[in-house]
Amino acid sequence: MRYDRTGLQVLDETECLRLLGSVPVGRIAFTHDALPAVQPVTFVVHEGAVVFRTREGSKLAAATRNAVVAFEVDEFDAATRSGWNVTVVGRARVVTDPDELAALAALDLRPWAPGQRDRYVQISVELVQGRRVPGRSRV
Amino acid sequence: MRYDRTGLQVLDETECLRLLGSVPVGRIAFTHDALPAVQPVTFVVHEGAVVFRTREGSKLAAATRNAVVAFEVDEFDAATRSGWNVTVVGRARVVTDPDELAALAALDLRPWAPGQRDRYVQISVELVQGRRVPGRSRV
Repeated sequence: MRYDRTGLQVLDETECLRLLGSVPVGRIAFTHDALPAVQPVTFVVHEGAVVFRTREGSKLAAATRNAVVAFEVDEFDAATRSGWNVTVVGRARVVTDPDELAALAALDLRPWAPGQRDRYVQISVELVQGRRVPGRSRV
Repeated sequence: MRYDRTGLQVLDETECLRLLGSVPVGRIAFTHDALPAVQPVTFVVHEGAVVFRTREGSKLAAATRNAVVAFEVDEFDAATRSGWNVTVVGRARVVTDPDELAALAALDLRPWAPGQRDRYVQISVELVQGRRVPGRSRV
């Protein structure tokens, strides 16, 4: 196992992608009005890309149109002071191709919030990095 | 209760600050090498500001030096498809004043990772926003 200079275990790409697909909610970091912003979304991994839904005309839809974004997932446990995080960096694009949209509509990607979200946004995984905090069990 | 156009409950500032202080880990969104980056950190709220520790010379220390950053906390529950998130936007600064450092050293701010983290970084809360996904219990 490899550790970085801050004492965190470095996760390889396979493990990063496995963990990415193991949680239902991730966070998109983007720029809005020249300020950094973070927005949690429910998502799935489809054909190697992160896919989420948003409302047409929303800040998120506008900000992620052909923008490079970071997408982060993690899981931490306060009791054992351990956990992991994975960050993807990639370009976001609104899906408009009818065949692609039909494939995405068949996925189990129901947003938790009640409002309508009819825009599908896809983030290509161009760069993926992950770290694990070993926690108390590490000897 | 107020809802936004995406069907999420809008949290007022008091509730945002209460939730901000209720979790041990948050995520900083910043820019590194012109790319968006997200880094989880353990933190505390001290005198109304977010405080975390990092390693001198780290990417995070460099990227947050007098930069405007977003700091996000959340809690989601897949079983009830509910949760909340709070995002702070503010300026990050490395704490150098000896009196301030002494006060911060007295806080229970032990990073979970084993490596040394001798830099204290403070994020002023200039803007705070929060949303709640009501989940299944909403009628």
